[in-house]
Amino acid sequence: MIFGATPEAVRVGIGDDAAVLGVGDASLAWSVDVVVEGVHFRRDWLTPRELGFKATMAAASDLAAMGARPLGALASLVLPASMSDADMASLAEGQAAACTAIGASVIGGNLARGSELSVTTTVLGICDRVLRREGARAGDTLWCAGPLGLAAAGLRALLAGRSEDRALQAAIAAWRQPVARIAEGLRAAALAHAAIDVSDGLSLDAARLLGASLDLVMAPPVSADLGVAARALSVDAQELVLSGGEDYALLVAAPDDATLEGFSRIGRFEKGSGVLWLEQEGERRRIEPRGFDHFAS
Amino acid sequence: MIFGATPEAVRVGIGDDAAVLGVGDASLAWSVDVVVEGVHFRRDWLTPRELGFKATMAAASDLAAMGARPLGALASLVLPASMSDADMASLAEGQAAACTAIGASVIGGNLARGSELSVTTTVLGICDRVLRREGARAGDTLWCAGPLGLAAAGLRALLAGRSEDRALQAAIAAWRQPVARIAEGLRAAALAHAAIDVSDGLSLDAARLLGASLDLVMAPPVSADLGVAARALSVDAQELVLSGGEDYALLVAAPDDATLEGFSRIGRFEKGSGVLWLEQEGERRRIEPRGFDHFAS
Repeated sequence: MIFGATPEAVRVGIGDDAAVLGVGDASLAWSVDVVVEGVHFRRDWLTPRELGFKATMAAASDLAAMGARPLGALASLVLPASMSDADMASLAEGQAAACTAIGASVIGGNLARGSELSVTTTVLGICDRVLRREGARAGDTLWCAGPLGLAAAGLRALLAGRSEDRALQAAIAAWRQPVARIAEGLRAAALAHAAIDVSDGLSLDAARLLGASLDLVMAPPVSADLGVAARALSVDAQELVLSGGEDYALLVAAPDDATLEGFSRIGRFEKGSGVLWLEQEGERRRIEPRGFDHFAS
Repeated sequence: MIFGATPEAVRVGIGDDAAVLGVGDASLAWSVDVVVEGVHFRRDWLTPRELGFKATMAAASDLAAMGARPLGALASLVLPASMSDADMASLAEGQAAACTAIGASVIGGNLARGSELSVTTTVLGICDRVLRREGARAGDTLWCAGPLGLAAAGLRALLAGRSEDRALQAAIAAWRQPVARIAEGLRAAALAHAAIDVSDGLSLDAARLLGASLDLVMAPPVSADLGVAARALSVDAQELVLSGGEDYALLVAAPDDATLEGFSRIGRFEKGSGVLWLEQEGERRRIEPRGFDHFAS
């Protein structure tokens, strides 16, 4: 039975931010993410370098959510003939820059021709303690690391052709160059009960931390940059916070008295029935999880 | 320095069949492969189930070439709207069947919309001993597990619209349903000096085992199935063996007296200067490596 050891190696399967494999004493978090031209980006919205950076950070964000330290990345590119060698070199530079920022490197990959540009990134990391989506407890605080809503404002700015608008630069930068919250995830790993990264919007991803017996009462802040961008776009800043995608912020459920550098308190878990509440000026209203479904889009 | 441990973890980087990471005492082989509609396949050539099977086996073949035992696979799909839910379920069935055949399972993945169907598979395995491309020695025998040239004949049959031709069924099956030579790779790992899988054609992949101080003299056989298919296609069977792609046969350089179940002897390494020779009826002629360059195609 040369193959006998495999099934028990899977500690976390489909349904969390990453799969987790047990190898000896180590727990390895492993994830894959793809960005496709015309679906996730347009080439006039990003330089090739920015595309490589963003694709890598989006994949690495899943490691942050598992409390994993990155070991490396493999990149698989589908390249139309319109991508020059110089474009490809720039894309690889962006991937390398993102990997350097998270303490890893691109250690291999694959190239193929195709008519539609796509970048698939697979990342591997190692966990001292595995952070799962499930595990939040009544009484926990919801902590957040990273901006909320700003990337969604940036995407709207680009869709509106307003890439030069000064009031929208912080938002566009947040969309173009997200940051995987690796250091924050490692800090949280020892203390937190549960974690997820915000890729599809706060309300949708926060709801994924809820079991059937918990409610979550949130009062997420609106940053100064987001306020400026939302005014310039004439959209509701709070709506962007709740349903905007591609933040790659990190949410963790942890005790209120935890020391979590780089995180802010944005909500609390209570006994309940899987309901999400928004609290403003002492009043709470029930909200439905909604956001960006990458597959339906 | 939370990130300090990363660079030394990379034992094999870009340029071999898979990257190898050191995690504790374990050596993990990790690879990614993509198949793109219109480049690697057409949808009228394969059922969705066959596509899932073939994409998974193509990726797993890189693990065979490293002498690795598969731990699992992640699948990332880009799906056009023309792929129905039933098509997707069939594709996943094919992936699961391939994983079962190699003793692993699909433990996660990613779905995205796009206009061009592609299947990206990333696989992870564990090596007792890592097989590299370099390491062949003068005096070694070239051993081969798996058919050569047959998948290329199958591709030609499909390109010619002859999917119903009886003489071509074995060839078409070889193209549609390749087999990663995992068990053979594990058997070879203890004994072999070097290994590679044949994805781009025997002459091209065998040449990758040569250093500047080795020659390789080959006398690869033409199987009965290939003889039949080549006659039906009016092509030279030996040409298909030497330059046909997608065999996913396994080549290893090992002593001639090794006991390698499932392998045949098809050549030998001599002191030389990186030259490939074909031996027929006691005569040798020099051949140039040529085959299928997935990226240039």
